[in-house]
Amino acid sequence: MKLYDYIRSSAAYRVRIALNLKGVDCESIPVSLLDGDQKSSEYLDVNSAGLVPALETQGNIITQSLAIIEYLDELYPELPLLPEHPVERAQCRALAYDVTCDIHPLNNLRILKHLTGELGHSEEEKMAWYHHWLKEGFNGLEQKLSKSDSTFCCGESPTLADICLIPQLFNAHRFEFNLAAYPRLKEIESNCLALSAFSDASPK
Amino acid sequence: MKLYDYIRSSAAYRVRIALNLKGVDCESIPVSLLDGDQKSSEYLDVNSAGLVPALETQGNIITQSLAIIEYLDELYPELPLLPEHPVERAQCRALAYDVTCDIHPLNNLRILKHLTGELGHSEEEKMAWYHHWLKEGFNGLEQKLSKSDSTFCCGESPTLADICLIPQLFNAHRFEFNLAAYPRLKEIESNCLALSAFSDASPK
Repeated sequence: MKLYDYIRSSAAYRVRIALNLKGVDCESIPVSLLDGDQKSSEYLDVNSAGLVPALETQGNIITQSLAIIEYLDELYPELPLLPEHPVERAQCRALAYDVTCDIHPLNNLRILKHLTGELGHSEEEKMAWYHHWLKEGFNGLEQKLSKSDSTFCCGESPTLADICLIPQLFNAHRFEFNLAAYPRLKEIESNCLALSAFSDASPK
Repeated sequence: MKLYDYIRSSAAYRVRIALNLKGVDCESIPVSLLDGDQKSSEYLDVNSAGLVPALETQGNIITQSLAIIEYLDELYPELPLLPEHPVERAQCRALAYDVTCDIHPLNNLRILKHLTGELGHSEEEKMAWYHHWLKEGFNGLEQKLSKSDSTFCCGESPTLADICLIPQLFNAHRFEFNLAAYPRLKEIESNCLALSAFSDASPK
């Protein structure tokens, strides 16, 4: 397997965590988003959407971090990344999508570049945008996750929800977002980062 | 089952298609996004994120359209909404996420309101934003989907990918986006809308 990867992409960071949790060896092929490698004709042949990550497996390409992670979970069912019961599986996926559909798409690099480029917003306005959508998303997540005091988002082992939450928290720190109102998120972050599967995957 | 629903929400539209494809009866509870019902304390008790849709099932709440649809697919495995082979399943999910993570989050009502409200952009600039992200996303999708001439996105029966694509195309029409460059998307749309499961779920 080969992972088309960018160290600071939080979507790629999710996949790196999943690979580590599964103990799967995977060659990393760097695609620099800052240098625009994702728009090179060579990379567009891999992923016509021009986004990272992408996984090459058995001669096939799988794009989209969540699709890659669900694939890894189906291929390597030991240490499952989703709970067993259908309702709990759905609620775990919903937490993941709270990050991957409602926070991250608004705050990733191409959007920030568009805001300060085409739309002519200042750095300060860009940061306000970033913090606004983080706050909207984290408020809902903090409430949902405060209903239990489990070690991880969905019980006593890490799942897809943690895999999505931790890279988003990494970005929150990087963009100097004040997390004082989110003690439960910080607690889960600390529990996850105590595991090498998470800390080894970090852009740090 | 009860679906907290809003007729023009494309995330809710996805779930309505899935319920129809599965032939599952479900009570619809309207939550008007235009009237701000999603921020009422009553609805926030259902979904603290203040977004539709949400499914009530066996005393539990499941949020996020994709989590609901994967749940329905696990609960009612007949007429599966994902291909059987792991790589094909992943590629089908990736097509769904191309819409749900890379297009729709940028163009939904709360973002458009934020652009013309807090950020002070004009209606014209709002439309340019809308079309920009549609174009980015549809360009990649058209390329990916043109690699086959199947009736639907992933073969000869509708899947999660079609369920996500059709509501996004509905929005594209509504926002007067020119689809001339996307014959393959239009072909799949026409094939899907020939099925009552899709056309009955439409906001039209």
